[in-house]
Amino acid sequence: MDENARSPAGPIAVVGAGSWGTALAIHLARQGRTARLWARDPALAREIIARGENARYLPGLALPPGVRVTADAHEALVGAGLVVVAVPSHGFAAVVARLGGAIPPEAAIVSATKGLEPETRRRMSEVLADLLPGRPVAVLSGPSFAREVALGRPAALVVAAADADVSRRVQRTLASLAFRLYTNTDVVGVELGGALKNVVAIAAGISDSLGLGENARAALVTRGLAEIARLGAALGAHPGTFAGLAGLGDLVLTCAGTLSRNRALGLAVGAGRSLAEAEGSSPMVAEGVRTVTSALILARAAGVSLPISEEVAAILFHGKSARDALAAILARGLRPETETVGFYR
Amino acid sequence: MDENARSPAGPIAVVGAGSWGTALAIHLARQGRTARLWARDPALAREIIARGENARYLPGLALPPGVRVTADAHEALVGAGLVVVAVPSHGFAAVVARLGGAIPPEAAIVSATKGLEPETRRRMSEVLADLLPGRPVAVLSGPSFAREVALGRPAALVVAAADADVSRRVQRTLASLAFRLYTNTDVVGVELGGALKNVVAIAAGISDSLGLGENARAALVTRGLAEIARLGAALGAHPGTFAGLAGLGDLVLTCAGTLSRNRALGLAVGAGRSLAEAEGSSPMVAEGVRTVTSALILARAAGVSLPISEEVAAILFHGKSARDALAAILARGLRPETETVGFYR
Repeated sequence: MDENARSPAGPIAVVGAGSWGTALAIHLARQGRTARLWARDPALAREIIARGENARYLPGLALPPGVRVTADAHEALVGAGLVVVAVPSHGFAAVVARLGGAIPPEAAIVSATKGLEPETRRRMSEVLADLLPGRPVAVLSGPSFAREVALGRPAALVVAAADADVSRRVQRTLASLAFRLYTNTDVVGVELGGALKNVVAIAAGISDSLGLGENARAALVTRGLAEIARLGAALGAHPGTFAGLAGLGDLVLTCAGTLSRNRALGLAVGAGRSLAEAEGSSPMVAEGVRTVTSALILARAAGVSLPISEEVAAILFHGKSARDALAAILARGLRPETETVGFYR
Repeated sequence: MDENARSPAGPIAVVGAGSWGTALAIHLARQGRTARLWARDPALAREIIARGENARYLPGLALPPGVRVTADAHEALVGAGLVVVAVPSHGFAAVVARLGGAIPPEAAIVSATKGLEPETRRRMSEVLADLLPGRPVAVLSGPSFAREVALGRPAALVVAAADADVSRRVQRTLASLAFRLYTNTDVVGVELGGALKNVVAIAAGISDSLGLGENARAALVTRGLAEIARLGAALGAHPGTFAGLAGLGDLVLTCAGTLSRNRALGLAVGAGRSLAEAEGSSPMVAEGVRTVTSALILARAAGVSLPISEEVAAILFHGKSARDALAAILARGLRPETETVGFYR
């Protein structure tokens, strides 16, 4: 294959044909590159090819010819200079274990997944380092509804890698005028920002479903970011990262955005639907449901308090009424603001 | 008057019968207090009294009996233990100069105005200190759409004073279960957060009117907060304040909120209306139009760059096309994220 001869990174493979993987492949094809889009499910691959669109995860958007869909790992990965992995966090390790042997040793591997592995609480870059040690790894995060990226609307994201050469290489390969990428070396912070904001987004959806209003939601977002930064710092992230695109930026988008599945799940749960019902209403995964449990385990071990996450878990898993839980979050005594967001000081 | 005998602060006066002053008076009356609401315009005072609502600035909300409306300064201020000033920033000094003699010397004076004085770039607490030296002064800021507060929906705000005794006194007097107040000693940061976010909200409205999408708006909010924090720190604020309710919280609300007049002005201007047309369409003041000029003057003197504010000013005052200006904001080269939000590091 010489389809990507003009790319500095060689051919690009996108692993995972959900909405985000498909959107990234469309974005790359729009830049004149060929993106090989790997779908785990051969039926989905056939369906996408037959229809010329991913009707299941990104309906209504025709795939440009530069997107080559396949369920064959070798076909997707042979000679690839860059491999983007965009699968749900709970399936990430299995997919990497299955495909790892086919990923060229020199390829940069980019996790575009926002979440923590449920059983192990590993970040996705940790999964990659464990399964494919020594490979050049980066993570991609930031405010990015897939549909908007697929439509070519402007977005700004972060590429983080411990090795700045790797993040710059990924930046050169994936960025465009409309798809701005900023590099960062704080892999831990960028991954945690993307994972933990989904929990706050569920809380925001619940608040909205209770009609608490925009003032309450703004307060929730503010306290939510402080909570994320607190846990993040305890886990080795740089707090400043949470003020950037992968923290604040993604949190704002997910909590207010009309396309957020985590907020939508919160809306459904707040309206009285069970978690099973709320999760069953969309083929897409609301990562926050899994992340909240992981976050609480990590926080307990680190001695950090996560009041918003505690209440979200109480609603989702222990039948606490949404109204009582939100009241508990919003009513936390009169005290100096520095006690709650003092983290940034 | 012994109407507020049970209040620790004595009677409360709210100066300014716009939407925010009226909402604060309604909130206080709901707590069982009497709030004397002073309207500069006697015709407005008569109209509010006759209708039992402030149809001009907060239509559809009946005033509870605890709100006593008057255009007589003495009647509003005699014996007041707390005076909240909620008038537009360009009229703030004139109102304080006019009423100052009637404000009891021991009364705590709370600025609830978000903006900078256009001619002098003074913050409102500086205006108070200049006109009424030695008085106990505090500022009230944070995410707070007036209508929601008037409806009793939950909100969380910040009261800042150099003297923590003053902010605690204001907190005890104004706070309720639904109206949470957090104290802070960073008066500069709390005032600048409330003022500068209006400029970013105009940019967000312009972005939305151009259909750039939610990813672009989230990026704009993130870069906007970094810009606010950069200028704030140069002017003596504590950067951590901008991660709190008066920074991030208010910014998020104003940039995404459906009730934001600054965002609404950006929407109108982005759709091609002139500034005069956009400003004429509402009796309410979009503070950001004045703040942007002040911010740029302050930034130039401090050697700080404000790319978003520069482009907003170019659109509002120099006829630059909204599309060109937004493209300039969003396209700022590929570089490490730390160069743009490094401020928090």
